Amino acid sequence: MTKKYQVVGIGNAMVDVLAPCEDSFLAENGIDKGIMQLTDKARGVELYGLIGPAKEISGGSAANTIAGIAHLGGKTAYVGKVKDDQLGEIFAHDLRAQGADYETPLAPKDHEAETGRCIVLVSPDGERSMNTYLGVTEFLGPDDIDEAQCADADWIYLEGYRFDGPTSVAAFDKAIAACKGAGGRVSVTLSDPFCVDRHRDAFRALIKDHIDLLFCNRAEMLSMYETDDFDAALAQAASEVEIVACTDGADGAHVLSGGQRWHAPAMPVQIVDATGAGDLFAGAFLWALTNGHDLETCGKMGCVAASEVISHIGARPEADLHALFKKQGLL
Amino acid sequence: MTKKYQVVGIGNAMVDVLAPCEDSFLAENGIDKGIMQLTDKARGVELYGLIGPAKEISGGSAANTIAGIAHLGGKTAYVGKVKDDQLGEIFAHDLRAQGADYETPLAPKDHEAETGRCIVLVSPDGERSMNTYLGVTEFLGPDDIDEAQCADADWIYLEGYRFDGPTSVAAFDKAIAACKGAGGRVSVTLSDPFCVDRHRDAFRALIKDHIDLLFCNRAEMLSMYETDDFDAALAQAASEVEIVACTDGADGAHVLSGGQRWHAPAMPVQIVDATGAGDLFAGAFLWALTNGHDLETCGKMGCVAASEVISHIGARPEADLHALFKKQGLL
Repeated sequence: MTKKYQVVGIGNAMVDVLAPCEDSFLAENGIDKGIMQLTDKARGVELYGLIGPAKEISGGSAANTIAGIAHLGGKTAYVGKVKDDQLGEIFAHDLRAQGADYETPLAPKDHEAETGRCIVLVSPDGERSMNTYLGVTEFLGPDDIDEAQCADADWIYLEGYRFDGPTSVAAFDKAIAACKGAGGRVSVTLSDPFCVDRHRDAFRALIKDHIDLLFCNRAEMLSMYETDDFDAALAQAASEVEIVACTDGADGAHVLSGGQRWHAPAMPVQIVDATGAGDLFAGAFLWALTNGHDLETCGKMGCVAASEVISHIGARPEADLHALFKKQGLL
Repeated sequence: MTKKYQVVGIGNAMVDVLAPCEDSFLAENGIDKGIMQLTDKARGVELYGLIGPAKEISGGSAANTIAGIAHLGGKTAYVGKVKDDQLGEIFAHDLRAQGADYETPLAPKDHEAETGRCIVLVSPDGERSMNTYLGVTEFLGPDDIDEAQCADADWIYLEGYRFDGPTSVAAFDKAIAACKGAGGRVSVTLSDPFCVDRHRDAFRALIKDHIDLLFCNRAEMLSMYETDDFDAALAQAASEVEIVACTDGADGAHVLSGGQRWHAPAMPVQIVDATGAGDLFAGAFLWALTNGHDLETCGKMGCVAASEVISHIGARPEADLHALFKKQGLL
């Protein structure tokens, strides 16, 4: 029987606050370039006071992935917590307007935290440095998981960042049990090398026990297996997980499964804003996989989608990805 | 004695919600292309539910003008009302981060209205159709005018849209008296042909009695003088006001003063989003004027600034306008 959803994604719901900056600004303000740093509310407010004029665009790693799947016409839903406030309304609108289902209960107006936001500082080279105030997304817990929804999904997709919250790990467990119990499969993204560092044991246990498809990039892969040997890390991951899809920056992506390995090239593109590259890779990959494409094509579509999203400000697709896939002979 | 401000602007404070759309969407939803339409909150909510994923970028016509002056390094301040809510915080941040002073009292959290927003639908040809929920900006009144600030300005700049609010007209009167009483001068933008239509008598009285510099575009000029004869309308305006600066779309802008007339050509540019073209024309014009440039150069700088802002999404400058002026031999 066909399930209602190709993919249900779970992650940090937030709105991105995107501002250009010089690399010197990062150095002066103690911001590490190219990674995600968690900030408390006070630091978030302080940093917001320092940056220039910004644009607000819905973000959140797994939410970007789900938006990509919805953009491609996939049947998809998202689970992540926003508040009953203006930024929460924006987040929910943008996801639903893209065609994804989104019914996670709102944190009430009197909640002390607000909808999460991520100050994304975009350097002249297009690299992004993220400063995340989690807000109410931190409080995602098992009660926010609709077991029937997870059971009605071919795949669930878990955002590694959410391992920073204990109740969210319990939410993941509940979603995994519901999905697997109904014959579905489980994918995860490692999200960030420092996030891997914070939760390596939990990630390793999850991967060995439950994961069918692992998304990551080179730095996360090396962090996960605590090695400098990329090929060895890929091989180890492939021995533990049915499908490994590892992006590698300008070198595209590597896909490993069943003893085979494919390489998908990165598309030549002027990088305006790297935010969302990995998210859209995963979105296109999952859409392709659940539409019956072979793994090599999944990887190639992932790279095309990533190239689209880094060619403009913001982490959600703007150009027609179907048209771009056709142009590359993938559809 | 040098005054603290080159320009103090007064207008509708709001955040733009920008979304691409096909022209057929406008027709299906009864939206007139290329103009501003006021909506109540219910219609705003309905329309927001119909549009696709959007981006939020601070807007407001006079606020865009003031942001342009601040971007150029001008000493400038803005007066316009937002609420103590997330969108109000965004609006205030973006203006201050650009270098403008902004101290208008916030509408309190328990105000029934919210910070104003404008749903800007951008057609494939770059034309924008604006649907404005005014929110608390409607309540701008005389108490929000700091007479000392207006007295300390070489120019004040009044946004025609705000003629839709009776208490705001009283606020304008207070600002004009304070500014003129201290030897300052007064500029106004007509904002929109239908706004002119709604308040023609008030505009005409204002122009004759108080205005030293009139900004408008061709459609607004024709509406103001209820004629199809553009040159006759320009001549009439020039007989009533010391300086007339009238934009004319792809034909650039016309500047009239003291019996002379100059033409500034539009810059060749791919129109991505026409939002803010007139606002940035006025911003660059006022910056140039208050920095001692001749009127022909003011018009040319206005056209260069307008061309920058229509080349990207959003109504605030992104590229370095000084550099663009230099490239055109204007600095």
